[in-house]
Amino acid sequence: MLGIIAGGGDLPRAVAQSVRAEGRDVFVVGLRGCVTPGWVETFPHEFVSLGEPGKALKALAGAAVREVLLAGRVDRPKFSELKLDAKGMMVLPKVIAAARQGDDALLRCMVDIFEREGFRALSVAEAAPGLVCGIGPLGRLAPAEDHQADIASGFRIVKTLGALDVGQAAAVCDGLALAVEAAEGTDQMIARIASLREALRGTPDHRRGVLVKALKPTQDAKTDMPVIGVETVRNAAAAGLAGIALEAGKSLIVGKGDVAAEADRLGLFVTGVAT
Amino acid sequence: MLGIIAGGGDLPRAVAQSVRAEGRDVFVVGLRGCVTPGWVETFPHEFVSLGEPGKALKALAGAAVREVLLAGRVDRPKFSELKLDAKGMMVLPKVIAAARQGDDALLRCMVDIFEREGFRALSVAEAAPGLVCGIGPLGRLAPAEDHQADIASGFRIVKTLGALDVGQAAAVCDGLALAVEAAEGTDQMIARIASLREALRGTPDHRRGVLVKALKPTQDAKTDMPVIGVETVRNAAAAGLAGIALEAGKSLIVGKGDVAAEADRLGLFVTGVAT
Repeated sequence: MLGIIAGGGDLPRAVAQSVRAEGRDVFVVGLRGCVTPGWVETFPHEFVSLGEPGKALKALAGAAVREVLLAGRVDRPKFSELKLDAKGMMVLPKVIAAARQGDDALLRCMVDIFEREGFRALSVAEAAPGLVCGIGPLGRLAPAEDHQADIASGFRIVKTLGALDVGQAAAVCDGLALAVEAAEGTDQMIARIASLREALRGTPDHRRGVLVKALKPTQDAKTDMPVIGVETVRNAAAAGLAGIALEAGKSLIVGKGDVAAEADRLGLFVTGVAT
Repeated sequence: MLGIIAGGGDLPRAVAQSVRAEGRDVFVVGLRGCVTPGWVETFPHEFVSLGEPGKALKALAGAAVREVLLAGRVDRPKFSELKLDAKGMMVLPKVIAAARQGDDALLRCMVDIFEREGFRALSVAEAAPGLVCGIGPLGRLAPAEDHQADIASGFRIVKTLGALDVGQAAAVCDGLALAVEAAEGTDQMIARIASLREALRGTPDHRRGVLVKALKPTQDAKTDMPVIGVETVRNAAAAGLAGIALEAGKSLIVGKGDVAAEADRLGLFVTGVAT
């Protein structure tokens, strides 16, 4: 039995379905206020709020779970407004201290809480390898020769920024950094590209520039691999970008078939790069 | 006679006024489509478009200018739509090649064009030292103890990003990078902070986080020092930030008196840090 601690976005459901499709039982702990509504109920489950790690641990133990996986977006709570169970009170100082050091430290701290209770923490790559990005283009289109410099530049920016725990995505067009991700998230970052002057960027009729998303050097592949899905492709298309480049083996694609089809339909490439 | 090649924003006018106030004559070359309307006419001047360096050089020579200064924002043109004079045609390949390497290379290339014609290029710091940011707080407020870590983190992010020619500003709150500047510019970057979840940022009632702006390591202090003015203070205030930190000696403040007064009125600090 695998326990999935499920935050927001499409990733947790994709992981749960992928694990179940491979014949393994799944127990889902849905994080109230984070998890996308409507799917958790299709699995054995419990809902807990962010301040209730005790309740989560009890539910997992009751389901005979030995391995857990954290997936999905967890927005930083207002710690002063959290309702805490006993375990929550005990770990809160550690969690707040970790949050001060940044998102990566916060996630590592959460993994640590489960590991200290004797659970083994799995990465999405271990539990659902079918979601991991491979090498080369996913759909029909591949990056052209003149996208290679922007892809390289994008990876350089993201890796450098990532080392400072800033963000995990950037968009580059003809050597110019169009946008760099910080706390706003990738979708918001992509959305603002369309408001740049047209001389700097592409359009749906004349696509230019590349979105690059990559694991931060400080990031724990167990909790926070970069992930894209159909929405990412649609957003990149609307922003006039020519394609998306990911690190093969170190990023996730939710719904590979749909992503490939949508990329083909909209005229973008989605590619995995060996780094 | 000092020649000022004037792009957009408030800086070129501030420089021209500061130089004239110190008793030196000024000739302004206003870049059509870039320069802020209404003030160039109060100086001996010529307007040229971006494709007319020949016309600019001729006007400067005619005014017996030996030293020039580039100031203000120059948006990258669509090179295919530029109307070029003879000199413009000659330097265009070099300018396009420089533009491919990024904004800093483009500016250095423009400075180079003037220097090859025998002009000496001055920095704003040389021509109008009164605009340069000094050490310590400008207004009544100073950064508190708990702002120091965010200021240090902001400088680290901006210097690292700057080395990649990405941007020159970032906002940090309790260790979290709220926003990082790329092609959108500082004002747009500050504006989106207010749309982040309130748990992550400050508000006008409870200010948190710091805006940091600094010279890129790749940047030429002759052409593109970071600059703030009253609008920057107002934007930072609206975004709920607690203050602004600049590099003393390596950044510019347009309207120091007004900036200090507005920062005091809105409850922000504006400070120069020795780096």
